[in-house]
Amino acid sequence: MDLSVDRTASGREYKVKDISRTGFDRIWTELDQATMEMTSLEAVRTKYGPNQPLKGAKISASIAVTSRAGVLIKTLNNLGAEVRVCSRGTHWINDSTAAAIMAGDCASVFAWNGQTPQEYLWCMERALDWGQHGGPDLIIDDGGDITRFIREGIKAEKMYEKTGQLPGLSSSSTEDPKLRVMLTSIRDGLKSDPQRFHRMKDRLVGVSEMSTDGIQMLSKMQADGTFLEAIDINDSPTKRMFDNWYGPRLSLVEGLRRAYTGDSIAEKAAVVCGYGEVGKGCADALKEARAKVFVTENNPDYVFDALVDGFPVKHIDDFISMADFFVTTTDYKDSITVEHMRKMKNNAVICSIGQFDNDIDMEGLETYPGVRRITVSPQTDKWYFPETNTGVIVLAEGRMMNLGCATGHPSFVESCPYTDHVIGLLELWKLKDGRTDA
Amino acid sequence: MDLSVDRTASGREYKVKDISRTGFDRIWTELDQATMEMTSLEAVRTKYGPNQPLKGAKISASIAVTSRAGVLIKTLNNLGAEVRVCSRGTHWINDSTAAAIMAGDCASVFAWNGQTPQEYLWCMERALDWGQHGGPDLIIDDGGDITRFIREGIKAEKMYEKTGQLPGLSSSSTEDPKLRVMLTSIRDGLKSDPQRFHRMKDRLVGVSEMSTDGIQMLSKMQADGTFLEAIDINDSPTKRMFDNWYGPRLSLVEGLRRAYTGDSIAEKAAVVCGYGEVGKGCADALKEARAKVFVTENNPDYVFDALVDGFPVKHIDDFISMADFFVTTTDYKDSITVEHMRKMKNNAVICSIGQFDNDIDMEGLETYPGVRRITVSPQTDKWYFPETNTGVIVLAEGRMMNLGCATGHPSFVESCPYTDHVIGLLELWKLKDGRTDA
Amino acid sequence: MDLSVDRTASGREYKVKDISRTGFDRIWTELDQATMEMTSLEAVRTKYGPNQPLKGAKISASIAVTSRAGVLIKTLNNLGAEVRVCSRGTHWINDSTAAAIMAGDCASVFAWNGQTPQEYLWCMERALDWGQHGGPDLIIDDGGDITRFIREGIKAEKMYEKTGQLPGLSSSSTEDPKLRVMLTSIRDGLKSDPQRFHRMKDRLVGVSEMSTDGIQMLSKMQADGTFLEAIDINDSPTKRMFDNWYGPRLSLVEGLRRAYTGDSIAEKAAVVCGYGEVGKGCADALKEARAKVFVTENNPDYVFDALVDGFPVKHIDDFISMADFFVTTTDYKDSITVEHMRKMKNNAVICSIGQFDNDIDMEGLETYPGVRRITVSPQTDKWYFPETNTGVIVLAEGRMMNLGCATGHPSFVESCPYTDHVIGLLELWKLKDGRTDA
Amino acid sequence: MDLSVDRTASGREYKVKDISRTGFDRIWTELDQATMEMTSLEAVRTKYGPNQPLKGAKISASIAVTSRAGVLIKTLNNLGAEVRVCSRGTHWINDSTAAAIMAGDCASVFAWNGQTPQEYLWCMERALDWGQHGGPDLIIDDGGDITRFIREGIKAEKMYEKTGQLPGLSSSSTEDPKLRVMLTSIRDGLKSDPQRFHRMKDRLVGVSEMSTDGIQMLSKMQADGTFLEAIDINDSPTKRMFDNWYGPRLSLVEGLRRAYTGDSIAEKAAVVCGYGEVGKGCADALKEARAKVFVTENNPDYVFDALVDGFPVKHIDDFISMADFFVTTTDYKDSITVEHMRKMKNNAVICSIGQFDNDIDMEGLETYPGVRRITVSPQTDKWYFPETNTGVIVLAEGRMMNLGCATGHPSFVESCPYTDHVIGLLELWKLKDGRTDA
Repeated sequence: MDLSVDRTASGREYKVKDISRTGFDRIWTELDQATMEMTSLEAVRTKYGPNQPLKGAKISASIAVTSRAGVLIKTLNNLGAEVRVCSRGTHWINDSTAAAIMAGDCASVFAWNGQTPQEYLWCMERALDWGQHGGPDLIIDDGGDITRFIREGIKAEKMYEKTGQLPGLSSSSTEDPKLRVMLTSIRDGLKSDPQRFHRMKDRLVGVSEMSTDGIQMLSKMQADGTFLEAIDINDSPTKRMFDNWYGPRLSLVEGLRRAYTGDSIAEKAAVVCGYGEVGKGCADALKEARAKVFVTENNPDYVFDALVDGFPVKHIDDFISMADFFVTTTDYKDSITVEHMRKMKNNAVICSIGQFDNDIDMEGLETYPGVRRITVSPQTDKWYFPETNTGVIVLAEGRMMNLGCATGHPSFVESCPYTDHVIGLLELWKLKDGRTDA
Repeated sequence: MDLSVDRTASGREYKVKDISRTGFDRIWTELDQATMEMTSLEAVRTKYGPNQPLKGAKISASIAVTSRAGVLIKTLNNLGAEVRVCSRGTHWINDSTAAAIMAGDCASVFAWNGQTPQEYLWCMERALDWGQHGGPDLIIDDGGDITRFIREGIKAEKMYEKTGQLPGLSSSSTEDPKLRVMLTSIRDGLKSDPQRFHRMKDRLVGVSEMSTDGIQMLSKMQADGTFLEAIDINDSPTKRMFDNWYGPRLSLVEGLRRAYTGDSIAEKAAVVCGYGEVGKGCADALKEARAKVFVTENNPDYVFDALVDGFPVKHIDDFISMADFFVTTTDYKDSITVEHMRKMKNNAVICSIGQFDNDIDMEGLETYPGVRRITVSPQTDKWYFPETNTGVIVLAEGRMMNLGCATGHPSFVESCPYTDHVIGLLELWKLKDGRTDA
Repeated sequence: MDLSVDRTASGREYKVKDISRTGFDRIWTELDQATMEMTSLEAVRTKYGPNQPLKGAKISASIAVTSRAGVLIKTLNNLGAEVRVCSRGTHWINDSTAAAIMAGDCASVFAWNGQTPQEYLWCMERALDWGQHGGPDLIIDDGGDITRFIREGIKAEKMYEKTGQLPGLSSSSTEDPKLRVMLTSIRDGLKSDPQRFHRMKDRLVGVSEMSTDGIQMLSKMQADGTFLEAIDINDSPTKRMFDNWYGPRLSLVEGLRRAYTGDSIAEKAAVVCGYGEVGKGCADALKEARAKVFVTENNPDYVFDALVDGFPVKHIDDFISMADFFVTTTDYKDSITVEHMRKMKNNAVICSIGQFDNDIDMEGLETYPGVRRITVSPQTDKWYFPETNTGVIVLAEGRMMNLGCATGHPSFVESCPYTDHVIGLLELWKLKDGRTDA
Repeated sequence: MDLSVDRTASGREYKVKDISRTGFDRIWTELDQATMEMTSLEAVRTKYGPNQPLKGAKISASIAVTSRAGVLIKTLNNLGAEVRVCSRGTHWINDSTAAAIMAGDCASVFAWNGQTPQEYLWCMERALDWGQHGGPDLIIDDGGDITRFIREGIKAEKMYEKTGQLPGLSSSSTEDPKLRVMLTSIRDGLKSDPQRFHRMKDRLVGVSEMSTDGIQMLSKMQADGTFLEAIDINDSPTKRMFDNWYGPRLSLVEGLRRAYTGDSIAEKAAVVCGYGEVGKGCADALKEARAKVFVTENNPDYVFDALVDGFPVKHIDDFISMADFFVTTTDYKDSITVEHMRKMKNNAVICSIGQFDNDIDMEGLETYPGVRRITVSPQTDKWYFPETNTGVIVLAEGRMMNLGCATGHPSFVESCPYTDHVIGLLELWKLKDGRTDA
């Protein structure tokens, strides 16, 4: 990608894949539908819009560029803010949506699918670049990448001030391509502007952060002696309830129905591993889809919950050869081992809806001697064991099946954390008069 | 397609698109999975297989060529029958499955996707061609095309014998391409073999028919004075319960989930039009997906059923502007009119799961002045009305959404009519000693 | 009871236990509540009342004297009819309700609890006595006792006319006390009025009958050559649905909760014997009460229904030692034998909600050598077997537990057959101009 | 009652109403049934019984004397303890059960129904009287009466030691008859034994307390400087889940079914006031009984819960004239006012299942000018307002309907806190070697 900034007719900066692309009709329809579904964002817009509470606020946002993000951006714009957006990762960027947002000319988007790490950082720096003022008033972060960039910048500036040393590219940063390009950029800019990140921090009123990783990054900054005002969206009761219980309970069955084409969930035996909020939602959803549901769980309180809810609880070994579906929600490594898989029924379906990617021992499966993998349909693989020439069906390569096989949370559910972001920014923005550079 | 018969190594005739095609692994996996799901077919195979009750039976079958049909064919083969298969239509033929069945070399398949009417008839004639014996012992028909061919043949032979006249290609047959090629073939063969269809009928022990259309064809033959022994699979209690109640209740939600990506069914208002068996299953399924369900129905008994089941029943006009989903199951033309659609909420979703294709007034919609159609995703169109620039989302172009957006009945459900076929053929085959030509 | 007719201030005849009794307040409240619950009767009253369609109709009714019957009587009165009521049996008559109806002075009631057969017949004859006209225009019957009385009367009159013979009191009638008093009354009246029942029949426009027994009686009359116009309430779709499915599904759990004080249904294993409409309702109700439900059934169609509804189906022997509740709905004698009971868990609960009283082998239980019965609470007995000193709990002495332990159908449900009666009488009354004596 | 101690044949002391009373068979059956239901107590007995972990422990217990308490006592006995029992109140004592426990001769019971306060204290002192040792090793308290007695005793002894003053009978104690008899007893004993309660406290290893009131009493003691080891059963997760969510969800519908004879819950509109754990259970139970359920709630988190669970949430005023049932679980005074009641439908049913007795403004109702109360059945009153001569039905006089109309928690549920008591006592007993008097 040619790394030069484009401008809309009104002069707003951006960089997306192809603003002239056709098919906007489809995307407008999608945005319209998302807008109708995201009722809490709409409620916020209706309630606060007329008073323009974010008037003058310059917001830099690192988020997943989807139609739902489009509704968030539009809402912030309607509340008076100016927004500059980069993507929260190098992939999964919807180029059409990015183009459509720019076509609406209400915010600056710097994102395209399949960015290199260099391009990723370039986009982030553009999102942070508010001209001579040097930085944003507010930040929306998801994954902590902006926070990390500022943290590394400040650390480097402090060291440079004290010792004149430039940051090295240590072995750990070598392995992490994002960190490597960040450090390179920081080093290259240090001499010409040794206070760039300090100025940015002084100007910054606060950060609204959605991920656990990002919150850990913010805690580290505080431990470093660099405090940023922040709102932890992840800790909101509605975010947790919707992300943990309500979202998976909707997307699990959607994912199964898509992946497991043509076969019935009803009357089948399904084992849910773990009975926390996610497991609870999954068990309920499978019961409603008419499966016979069984639970594995170690925590006695959760065992009790499962029993009271009417689900038999046993050790996974007791279910291993009778169940048709295994859904793991434990967030424990190797909750389902390759030894488990070998003992399962032919065509047993295995999937994970946990937060991490290692509930299912995929490495063990992939390296099992003589194992054979047949892709039945996208995100649906049958793995044959050589001893029996039968095997199991693994969804989404053992990773979060609600993302791989379904489309994650419904817009209605996703509306919750985005509304939390807006409410969080409104709260942070009240602190603007006390900021360091005021 | 070059219309010449191929032969397997064992000498079995066939004609499919590409027997050498790769990807068999995937199809074997699919067939294996279907076999495991189709438990009633498996039970029949286990129970009757050892006694080979269909030994010597020559079966011609006109059915949808899917992996489920593959399981049926294999089952018949395991019971001792020889089977020759053509497709029950010119499209929706799974070429890979056809190839895989031939690779298994247990039956003769004559089918490929996108046949011309001529090719379609050529395949049917191949399926009926059992060498010098002149015809099959048993027929599996779905849609009545084989029956119709035999009926037209016999009619023509009678007329030719009585009057020497060849069948004309009337205007009605001109419009129906299948009938036209049948009549052409009959006429072309009459002089050389004026008893071809009479011989076929004399040899034939009976027909197992799955569709209402086919049964009507058989009734017409009887009215013509030409009686065929037949089993009406459509009239089986299990077939009806599964096809009407159980199948749609599973595939409706599957279809909605696939078509209606990213939005929630839960908490939405859904109207089910019609509360027969199909409507009952749909209402129950939507309730289980946590929608708020409402019903429209004219038949007082069904109204009562719906109320006792806890669903409010009113006229569709009372729901028109409040509901998010409309599912019609009425089999009445224009149950949902374009006037209804204009009054619906923006983004209301409309679909049909009835037997016919005219519950929803698609013609009215398509010809509405200034209407604009945007395809959101395959089988999902948003239709904008010019007056409001808002509109409705129509699934599967208003036709059976459980086929268009989902994959029809699960294999488990489909196993029922196929098992009925096998049981029906076993019953018919007991009559073999009394056949006309014996 | 002194068998003389009393009169209200307005001159209306009656005979009840004690018209002066206190506590009317309570009964008015009960009648008021029943009236509000019996919404279909109220709808009939509102719709037809103003036109007085039953004006002039003289109705004799043999029904259970409850507050619900009070609402029926009031409704008929509001439609213009005059009603004379006797009880449909000698027991289960609510004397307070009878008194309250008379206090309302809108109909004539002849009924009190604990009648002798002679008193029972005296009441019935009073209900049929419409002065010099000799009989009612319309009859409401429940159990067929009035029909039977007229039938026996006509038979006797025919024989007497032909042969001069009086009816004998055969051995069968000796065993049936009701029949014996009927025949005695008929014989005693024959000489003085040999056409009493023929006149009654000629005047009678028709009968609305609610019970299977009564319908069989009417069929016998037709077979005898004596046709009565009749409406078979039992055959109404609403009556059947409500009596079979909806009523028991409500009253089963109510009965269990009352009988089985202090113990939980939830999580217990419950076996429902029989999966017709009654069994279907019971299984659903137990599932909603959170029991684990199992089914026994012989009819393959019903087995299929049960499986599709998600209930395991097996032979009762397979459940006998694991279940906590046994509910029989089969109407087959000895569906639960004493041998079954001996094998059950200690404190297993057994009850019947079928139509007849012999699903459970109570005789076998009562005569089991050394068995010991302890009444835990009214309608709840524990039966100890001597071998183990453990045993089973039988509700309502093995008879219909929804009557014994609960109060039968809710008023709302009972409203259905009563409304059917009214609609039936309206239809019959249209025939009045064609009656034999017109 | 003659206040003298009786002795069993084995010499065990007791005082109950009538040990010779008949009907033991029924009670043994009840105890047997309770034993089978109280599976967790049985599990404790099986696990710990063989090791006799409570061998030598002298336990004084103030609990409700029911068959369930009988199972608890038997369990403690089986674990090696000796138990002396008094009732936790002057009423609701089951004399037959008390007699039956004594007939079993495994513990000393001092309790009869309808005790005077003097008799109540006499029984408590007997339960605390372990001969010359002066007091129990362990205490089970429910309501804190024993704790309060010891607290007052110690306070008095301290004051007497310091000042020589005897405790006065203040005006507050005059109003509380229980406290008055306690203080009288303490005062009367002070001179002869000024260290009675200090000795008792020194000997005491700990208290297992089940009620909030009792825990508050224990906290006051600690604040006074008098610490007792105690287990707060009320704080156990299982106790709370079962008492709050699971128990009411079972007993609400049981109570409604019993109180509301003959009318249907299904299809009726029910309002649940409050959506904490109790309200959640009630809403779920009413939904399962097929009511249409609505919720009132102030706490935004609970509002969210209710909405996600599918229940509409509004202000009670919005439901007041449409609902058929009102169930309050708020524990807030006057959640349902007499003004609310006046606006309700005729025959609307009102009940409370909260912990306190003032959710419903019964005083306002009783003093409403011209209001008229008709008792429809025990615990079920209709209250007529004079303006309309219609009115509402109040269950259990507005108090806890699950106790008034049902029998409280099922044995299975009650097993939980009793098991917690046993586990708690086992833990406390481990501390015995460190007690003050050791």
